[in-house]
Amino acid sequence: MEEEIDLVGKAFADHYNHVFDNDRPALSALYKPSSMLTFEGHKIQGVEDITAKLTSLPFDKCRHVISTVDSQPSTFTGGIVVFVSGSLQLAGEEPPLRYSQMFHLVSILEGNFFVQNEIFRLNIE
Amino acid sequence: MEEEIDLVGKAFADHYNHVFDNDRPALSALYKPSSMLTFEGHKIQGVEDITAKLTSLPFDKCRHVISTVDSQPSTFTGGIVVFVSGSLQLAGEEPPLRYSQMFHLVSILEGNFFVQNEIFRLNIE
Repeated sequence: MEEEIDLVGKAFADHYNHVFDNDRPALSALYKPSSMLTFEGHKIQGVEDITAKLTSLPFDKCRHVISTVDSQPSTFTGGIVVFVSGSLQLAGEEPPLRYSQMFHLVSILEGNFFVQNEIFRLNIE
Repeated sequence: MEEEIDLVGKAFADHYNHVFDNDRPALSALYKPSSMLTFEGHKIQGVEDITAKLTSLPFDKCRHVISTVDSQPSTFTGGIVVFVSGSLQLAGEEPPLRYSQMFHLVSILEGNFFVQNEIFRLNIE
């Protein structure tokens, strides 16, 4: 079970980053009306507002590179908590920005999750 | 409600750090048998094993300084997710170690929580 959790968390993080880097508006499929995002301290709720925030960030092309993914079952929701650290390379900017991010994924159907909670922070000194 | 969540998350983070820095074995009061900790990629479960891990880390005196605390309600558990970034100053060592940490707090009684999920990572390049 622990290994499965790790695989699911890693697959989710890879999927999220791939969509973010290649077709950001399609991230909307990961959220529900109850979903919450806190992005650098700004709180946003719901599919439309979260998607609007993510697609209006002040950079266009970017590439996520993952350093670590830690996953645990969320016992009382049948979901998963996923904690990601990595770096975000913005087109034409150096160095990459280090970040940490957490997701609380809630289960819809077996093996099918949506993002209920998401918190993103750049690692700034 | 949002403000209350922020106050509760901040109060929890301050409490955790105060106990960690001053009476580390007393952290055991924050966990239940179902609690999970992933510390730098090592998974630990249950009150005794988590407490043993935290009290056997390879440093004695330390001081946490918080940079940011982001909190959200965990809709399906009546709990809270708390995301903390900060630095850990070890006695006699410079510079402080930057870290990020998440907690999923589950409610026992009104205003009373235990740590169901905890993930800790140093922010290393």
